[in-house]
Amino acid sequence: MSILMLIKKACRLGGCVRSFVLTRPAHLSFSSSNMAKSKFEYVRNFETDDTCLRNCYIVVRLDGRNFHKFAEQHKFTKPNDNRALGLMTRSARSVIEELEDVVIAYGQSDEFSFVFKRTSNWFKRRASKFMTHVASQFSSSYVFYWKEFFGEQPLLYPPGFDGRVVLYPSNRNLRDYLSWRQADCHINNLYNTVFWTLVQKGGLTTAQADERLKGTLAADKNEILFSEFGINYNNESALHRKGTTLIWEKRDETVTKRMKVPNQEEKDMAVTRSRKRVEAYHCDIIGEQFWEDHPDILEDDN
Amino acid sequence: MSILMLIKKACRLGGCVRSFVLTRPAHLSFSSSNMAKSKFEYVRNFETDDTCLRNCYIVVRLDGRNFHKFAEQHKFTKPNDNRALGLMTRSARSVIEELEDVVIAYGQSDEFSFVFKRTSNWFKRRASKFMTHVASQFSSSYVFYWKEFFGEQPLLYPPGFDGRVVLYPSNRNLRDYLSWRQADCHINNLYNTVFWTLVQKGGLTTAQADERLKGTLAADKNEILFSEFGINYNNESALHRKGTTLIWEKRDETVTKRMKVPNQEEKDMAVTRSRKRVEAYHCDIIGEQFWEDHPDILEDDN
Amino acid sequence: MSILMLIKKACRLGGCVRSFVLTRPAHLSFSSSNMAKSKFEYVRNFETDDTCLRNCYIVVRLDGRNFHKFAEQHKFTKPNDNRALGLMTRSARSVIEELEDVVIAYGQSDEFSFVFKRTSNWFKRRASKFMTHVASQFSSSYVFYWKEFFGEQPLLYPPGFDGRVVLYPSNRNLRDYLSWRQADCHINNLYNTVFWTLVQKGGLTTAQADERLKGTLAADKNEILFSEFGINYNNESALHRKGTTLIWEKRDETVTKRMKVPNQEEKDMAVTRSRKRVEAYHCDIIGEQFWEDHPDILEDDN
Amino acid sequence: MSILMLIKKACRLGGCVRSFVLTRPAHLSFSSSNMAKSKFEYVRNFETDDTCLRNCYIVVRLDGRNFHKFAEQHKFTKPNDNRALGLMTRSARSVIEELEDVVIAYGQSDEFSFVFKRTSNWFKRRASKFMTHVASQFSSSYVFYWKEFFGEQPLLYPPGFDGRVVLYPSNRNLRDYLSWRQADCHINNLYNTVFWTLVQKGGLTTAQADERLKGTLAADKNEILFSEFGINYNNESALHRKGTTLIWEKRDETVTKRMKVPNQEEKDMAVTRSRKRVEAYHCDIIGEQFWEDHPDILEDDN
Repeated sequence: MSILMLIKKACRLGGCVRSFVLTRPAHLSFSSSNMAKSKFEYVRNFETDDTCLRNCYIVVRLDGRNFHKFAEQHKFTKPNDNRALGLMTRSARSVIEELEDVVIAYGQSDEFSFVFKRTSNWFKRRASKFMTHVASQFSSSYVFYWKEFFGEQPLLYPPGFDGRVVLYPSNRNLRDYLSWRQADCHINNLYNTVFWTLVQKGGLTTAQADERLKGTLAADKNEILFSEFGINYNNESALHRKGTTLIWEKRDETVTKRMKVPNQEEKDMAVTRSRKRVEAYHCDIIGEQFWEDHPDILEDDN
Repeated sequence: MSILMLIKKACRLGGCVRSFVLTRPAHLSFSSSNMAKSKFEYVRNFETDDTCLRNCYIVVRLDGRNFHKFAEQHKFTKPNDNRALGLMTRSARSVIEELEDVVIAYGQSDEFSFVFKRTSNWFKRRASKFMTHVASQFSSSYVFYWKEFFGEQPLLYPPGFDGRVVLYPSNRNLRDYLSWRQADCHINNLYNTVFWTLVQKGGLTTAQADERLKGTLAADKNEILFSEFGINYNNESALHRKGTTLIWEKRDETVTKRMKVPNQEEKDMAVTRSRKRVEAYHCDIIGEQFWEDHPDILEDDN
Repeated sequence: MSILMLIKKACRLGGCVRSFVLTRPAHLSFSSSNMAKSKFEYVRNFETDDTCLRNCYIVVRLDGRNFHKFAEQHKFTKPNDNRALGLMTRSARSVIEELEDVVIAYGQSDEFSFVFKRTSNWFKRRASKFMTHVASQFSSSYVFYWKEFFGEQPLLYPPGFDGRVVLYPSNRNLRDYLSWRQADCHINNLYNTVFWTLVQKGGLTTAQADERLKGTLAADKNEILFSEFGINYNNESALHRKGTTLIWEKRDETVTKRMKVPNQEEKDMAVTRSRKRVEAYHCDIIGEQFWEDHPDILEDDN
Repeated sequence: MSILMLIKKACRLGGCVRSFVLTRPAHLSFSSSNMAKSKFEYVRNFETDDTCLRNCYIVVRLDGRNFHKFAEQHKFTKPNDNRALGLMTRSARSVIEELEDVVIAYGQSDEFSFVFKRTSNWFKRRASKFMTHVASQFSSSYVFYWKEFFGEQPLLYPPGFDGRVVLYPSNRNLRDYLSWRQADCHINNLYNTVFWTLVQKGGLTTAQADERLKGTLAADKNEILFSEFGINYNNESALHRKGTTLIWEKRDETVTKRMKVPNQEEKDMAVTRSRKRVEAYHCDIIGEQFWEDHPDILEDDN
């Protein structure tokens, strides 16, 4: 039986961990290791280029995977769980702060969209880099910050989020994308608000509530809330009605520093400086107002 | 001053949260909310199709982001930290078990590759779904299972992993890809082993160790280990030399169940059944042996 | 009025052709022309990479644009026009001979497919280069060789062909692609043969023939031909039933050359040499036989 | 020997054309032909979607293949051959008139760029359709109209043009693309004009002319033309200096029609109507003037 056959046999028996002792390392097999690697390196050429078209906004949208089930298993309150929304926003903030070139992010329910500036050259605009970095940073942050929002309630298993990249060539297209997501938030939240009010305050079963709402328009739903439960939907939480918009903002920060001025005693002095911070808004971003108030978010089309 | 101007002003002053009370909800603005949404929905057409070519293996490779720094901040031992490697493997196992169609995964250092079967139709083979699901599940698992491997040592911040998708049309190409990664593992680990032996046992500074190894071949490095430190590299940990290969395996599992057989007393019985489990190997996957031992991993080219 | 304004005015009036005479060329505007060009050159970065995945067959299929109308206007005979089919094949031959790496081509009706070898690195495997070169060479050849097939019958306008690229990772996939096209040829030709026989020999109107054939299977169509018109479809032209397959073949060619051998009179000698030529077949390419007879067309999968 | 073996043998010997007579068609093999086709049809799924991003200009640029050699073989005059340029423009006009949604085209030397309107939905914006249709139509037209420009001088072989698709998201980007091409035209034509003047009028060899121009700026080249040959480059042909821009324009056309008006004799009447025609310009398209004069070419960015 040759040495090689012995090795193979040992390998077969022992789960491939070679346990016999050689008196000297087998130089031969190693002297060619770089060569061996270079022989395989051709496989790199199978990678394809997924560079995003220049001068377009790069949007990465994340969606929770099986979050219906996740919400039930973690006893999220209905129709909205502020702890869960807070954790989503905290994770989004982590994405914006750790990655580069995000100019605005918008989230609602179990989804969050991140908009990278149209002139971004981060990772040479490779789409896979954008979407996997966002998905990864968001997901690790979601577990990392869980305790801040859910306290002692344990996270039962690691959650998943999928992502995609979409490009928008013009400011109009980008704003319409964000409007689309906020209109979606509105429609879902109005429905959920009425649905759970019918169940929780009206005593209906979920099946009955579902039946009751079939074919109703937004106006009908508002009317149910107002006339049957005395609820003015407009006064409901802006967080729930409008979702969360995150942007960078310059803020003046005044800190007290102990300083030594020449020829004087060391003393406390107020130092003001401008710092960029991620700020959260729960307001309408469909109309003009928000964009007029924050003219620096979008770059000019030309 | 019109109502609208008042609203706008209030919005401007109050961070966009409208605080005034209306006697009745503004039906008008809502009745058209579905219409509003449909007006924006055209933006969906900007999503591009990223379907992976049929009949090719879909490989997703993850790489740690700034893991050099991450390793230092979390005091990883040199040249290998078994806790860190264990956590990588645990996270990879989570990916394989939670997602679909992974047939083999290979990891070393701060990277892990996941191979999906060539006939997979998971999410209609959309590349973005594959890479973001993997990046997300791996990252959330990394934080979730941290404590199992690092005990009380805290995780300082949420880590990031980027990912990419590469397609391989033939078994040869796929095996060459995996060989490429394992050859890379070998080269790096041999270098790191000698380097840190020179530093930790030889008393060299990192700069001196670096200088000493310049231009050396694999044979030279083996000789340094053997003649100067009495180390036979082949006897070093297979985990470090070969990395970690994860595959699905059928195992017979015998459990004791209390059962009631007709006309008899209820009693404990051994029940054996075949179950698929993810198993880890630390062996050579470049040669033929591993593939002969596991003929079910690859599908035939034709 | 400034010089510039005068120029603009002249330009506006005169269709932009400046007609006034300057005593000396305007150096200034030219000295910066290279600079001007480099200012615009960023637009090259908007080109995207469309490299074809390695180790896959690259297939370009062309289809005639509005060829139904083209055939009518040029009075193609029904159900097949041998002149038109000959011209298609002639144009395909031109593509194969002028471009690189085509290993097999298959054509029928107004379509032609060109298969490039899987290891081709022509134009770095850029999909756009493959499909536009094929479309262009085929189209210019179609007009160029028109006269060879249609004689004095004039070509009324320049015809168009569109093209696409499809990749096939395995020999099986590629053969199935070619089988698909030949099965399509068979189905269409059988239908057209019966249809036009019913019209031309059976005296039916086209509407009646259409009606007669509704819901018939291949066997029914064969039976109509055989029992009503005494036609055995299998004896119909192989060109029409099987389409045209073009491959490279080595042939021994014997030419007579006048040569001068040392110490002898100059005399005519037969010189035989092997030359690669494009050969046409009208045979079944779905079964094994053709591929066994021509083992060099396909490269091994591994 | 079975029938099948006989067939195979005949096929092998006779180049696959079956010549023996069967008394009846083999129904069996045909009854399953549709089934056979559907078995192969899965190969369609290997086609990938190459839809162009919405709201971007789609530019197809064609380049002559080996036109240096083509020009020599067809004795094109130096530095510009007006017949060849005329034929290029005639072929481009054919592309614009036969295909849809081209809003502007620009050509110089052996290249031509076609700009499709940003909202075009021609062939669902599939890139391959755009580039192959353009390449095909241009190439067949080039051969078709050859005689109109070259008279009795024969076309020696079918020429080839390759094409590519580039997307531009904004009007600025598109104009910069066109400016880039026109700047390229200017630089090349200035060089060629001086080069061939030095050769044809100055008596230099091409090598000497090449040497003489090394390192010269545009200003130097203008000076050579002006002081040594009395040529003011600005007075050279606009066609050569500026290339050819093709756009659609509405023109009033007056035709005489014989008409019958009620209660009157039939008589000739002048009828004026607006018709869209492709018009050619040889003017600057880098500056504002051209775009101010033709405000309908570009759609607004928003």
